[in-house]
Amino acid sequence: MNVDGAPYRTIWLNGDGETVDIIDQTRLPHEFEIIRLETCADAARAIRDMQVRGAPLIGATAAYGMALAMREDASDAALAAAGAALLGTRPTAVNLRWALEDMRAYLLPLSGAGRIAGAYRRAAEINDEDVAINRGIGEHGVTLLRDISAARGGATVNVLTHCNAGWLATVDRGTATSPIYEAHDSGLDVHVWVDETRPRNQGASLTAWELGQHGVPHTVIADNVGGHLMQHGDVDLCITGTDRTTATGDVCNKIGTYLKALAAHDNDVPFYVALPSPTIDWTLRDGVAEIPIEQRDGAEVSQMSGRTAAGALETVRIVPEGSPVANYAFDVTPNRLVTGLITERGIAPASEAGLRALFPERALSA
Amino acid sequence: MNVDGAPYRTIWLNGDGETVDIIDQTRLPHEFEIIRLETCADAARAIRDMQVRGAPLIGATAAYGMALAMREDASDAALAAAGAALLGTRPTAVNLRWALEDMRAYLLPLSGAGRIAGAYRRAAEINDEDVAINRGIGEHGVTLLRDISAARGGATVNVLTHCNAGWLATVDRGTATSPIYEAHDSGLDVHVWVDETRPRNQGASLTAWELGQHGVPHTVIADNVGGHLMQHGDVDLCITGTDRTTATGDVCNKIGTYLKALAAHDNDVPFYVALPSPTIDWTLRDGVAEIPIEQRDGAEVSQMSGRTAAGALETVRIVPEGSPVANYAFDVTPNRLVTGLITERGIAPASEAGLRALFPERALSA
Repeated sequence: MNVDGAPYRTIWLNGDGETVDIIDQTRLPHEFEIIRLETCADAARAIRDMQVRGAPLIGATAAYGMALAMREDASDAALAAAGAALLGTRPTAVNLRWALEDMRAYLLPLSGAGRIAGAYRRAAEINDEDVAINRGIGEHGVTLLRDISAARGGATVNVLTHCNAGWLATVDRGTATSPIYEAHDSGLDVHVWVDETRPRNQGASLTAWELGQHGVPHTVIADNVGGHLMQHGDVDLCITGTDRTTATGDVCNKIGTYLKALAAHDNDVPFYVALPSPTIDWTLRDGVAEIPIEQRDGAEVSQMSGRTAAGALETVRIVPEGSPVANYAFDVTPNRLVTGLITERGIAPASEAGLRALFPERALSA
Repeated sequence: MNVDGAPYRTIWLNGDGETVDIIDQTRLPHEFEIIRLETCADAARAIRDMQVRGAPLIGATAAYGMALAMREDASDAALAAAGAALLGTRPTAVNLRWALEDMRAYLLPLSGAGRIAGAYRRAAEINDEDVAINRGIGEHGVTLLRDISAARGGATVNVLTHCNAGWLATVDRGTATSPIYEAHDSGLDVHVWVDETRPRNQGASLTAWELGQHGVPHTVIADNVGGHLMQHGDVDLCITGTDRTTATGDVCNKIGTYLKALAAHDNDVPFYVALPSPTIDWTLRDGVAEIPIEQRDGAEVSQMSGRTAAGALETVRIVPEGSPVANYAFDVTPNRLVTGLITERGIAPASEAGLRALFPERALSA
C-alpha cells in the first residue's frame, strides 16, 4: 500500500538479490524507518522484537530468514539450526511453523548454490502467495460491506477492528483490512472504529497509521468502547484477523478479541474473522483448551512509549512501582461467537464442516 | 485508609474550620500531593479536572464546595449560582446532583452566619455518611468472598475489578474495594485483578496504588485480558462500582464495564456491583436508552502520562497525528448481566423488585 504516496510492501528483497529490507514497525506511527536484514539472526531478532509482527508477515520474514541463513551456510546442519532459531522467536503464530516447514521441505533435496538460490526463490513465492491470498480475502469480504451499504441506501458502513490485521501485518493488503481497502477503493462509504489494542497499541499506532496513509476514514477508540458503540447501533460489522484458527473455527487472536465477539453477539452485530488458510491449524479442535497463550514482558503493560510535545520518543511508566503486572498476548474466541471466516477461497461458517467444505484437501491431510 | 502508614481520608476540613484539603489524584501514583480548596471555584475545578473523581467523592466535594461558596457569600443568589456551577462540572454522576440538592434544601431555610455554619455542618455529615455507607457495603459484600473461600477450602479468592471504585473514589474505604479491604483485614486470602481502565488508567494508577499501600495482593492487567482469565477459571468474582444505577438495576459505570459483565456471564462468574444507595436514580428505568454518556477530550485517548526513567512526569502522544479519536467515558451494563447489587443495606438482585425491597421509602418517593 502507499506510504506518503509511494507504494511499499512490508518486506522486500533488495536489488543485490541477497539482503532483505523491512519497515521497523516499532517506530510507527512516529517514524517511518527501514531496516536491512543481512543474516538469519537479524531476521530472528526482527521477529522476536516485533519489528515485524502479524502472523502472515512473521511467516514471510521467517522464509527470508531461512534464505539469509543459507547464504551464510547451506549445510543440512545450518538448515536445521536456522529453522530452530526462527521457530523459537514467537510461540503462538502458526504461520511461522508453516513457513519454516515449507522452506525445509523445499530445501532438503537441494544443496550448495542450488539450495541458496532455491531458498530465495521459495521465500519470494511465499511472499507473493501472501499477497495473492489477501487479494482473495478482500474480494470475498467486500461483498459483506457492499450488502450492508446497499441495504442501508449507501449510508456509511461502520466497521470495528481490533489490533492490526492490516497491510502492516502481512506482505501487502492485510487480512481484516483487505475488504476495507477493497470497499474504500471502489467508492464505498466506509468508516473504521480502530481499537487501541493495549498493551502494545497496534491499533492506535499501526492500523490508524496505515488507514490514514491510504485515506480511509477512521476513529481511534479505547478497547473498552466497542460494546457501548454496538449497544447504540454504531457498528455494522466487526472484522478482525487471527493468528491461529482451529479446524473447528475457534479463533486465537490478539487479547481482547473475545470481549468484542461477546459484545457483537449480544447486539446482533455480525462478527467476521479474516484469515489466510495457512493460519488454520488443522490439528486443533478446542481453541480455549489447546492453544498455549504467550505471556509477554510486563513492561509492555507498565510502560507506554510515544512522542513528547518536544518531538522526542520517550517511554513513561504508568503503573505504580511494586505493583505486579500480567501480560497475556492472545485470547481465544469460541466458534459460536463467530459469524463467519473470510478466506481466500470464500466465506465459511466458523465450523469444522464450513472449513472442510472450503479446504477439502487440507482437512483430509490433517 | 493508610498512605505510607498514616491514615487519610480523600477530603477533609482543615483545622481552620474553613478550608478543605484533597489529595490531587491526577498526580497519583507518581506523587502524593495535597491541594487546598479555598473557594467554590476551587472545588468546581477540582471536580472538573478530576483531581477528585468517583461518584461518592464528587458528591462529598460538591457539598464542601457549597460550604466554601457560602463562606464567600451566603445570599440566596450565591446559593443558586454555586449549585449551578458545581452541577455543570460533570454531567453523569448522580451523586453530584443528589449532594447539591441535599445541601440546597438544608440551607434554604437558613441565612447569614447560620447558613455558613449549616453548610459546613451538613457537608461534614454527608462526608461521614459516605464512610458509614461504605462500611455497610464492606460488611455485606465480604460474605460473598467468605463463601467462595470456604467453598474452596481457603484457597485464594481472585476478584476482578474495573476502574477505581476504591478508597480514592469515596471519602474512605471505597465501594467495590470495601468488601476486599474487609476480607483482607480479616485474614482472608484475596488477590485482585486490576483492569488498567483506559483511557484514564484509573485502575493502573489509582486502584493498584491504593491496594499496594494497604498491602492487598493484586496484579495489573490490560482491559483486554479479563475475558481470557475468566475462560480459564482465574476469576472467582467480579466487583465494580457504578456512577449511576437505574431503579431497575441497570448499571452505568466506567466504559468497558459492560464487556467484563458479558465475559462473566459467558463463563458463569458472579458479577456484582457495589453502590451506595445515593447513586440509585429512581427516575430511570432503561439505562442504555436513558442515561446520557459523557464524551471527554480526545487527548485522554491520544496521549498518555507517566514517569520517565529519569523521574520526570511526561506526556507522550500514542496516536498518529491526524487520526480522529472518540472518548466515551461510561457504558451501561443491563441488569440481566448483573448477579447482584451490594448496598449499605444488603445485597439485592439487580431488579426493580430487588431494589424496592431494600429501599421501600426511596422507591415510593420516586
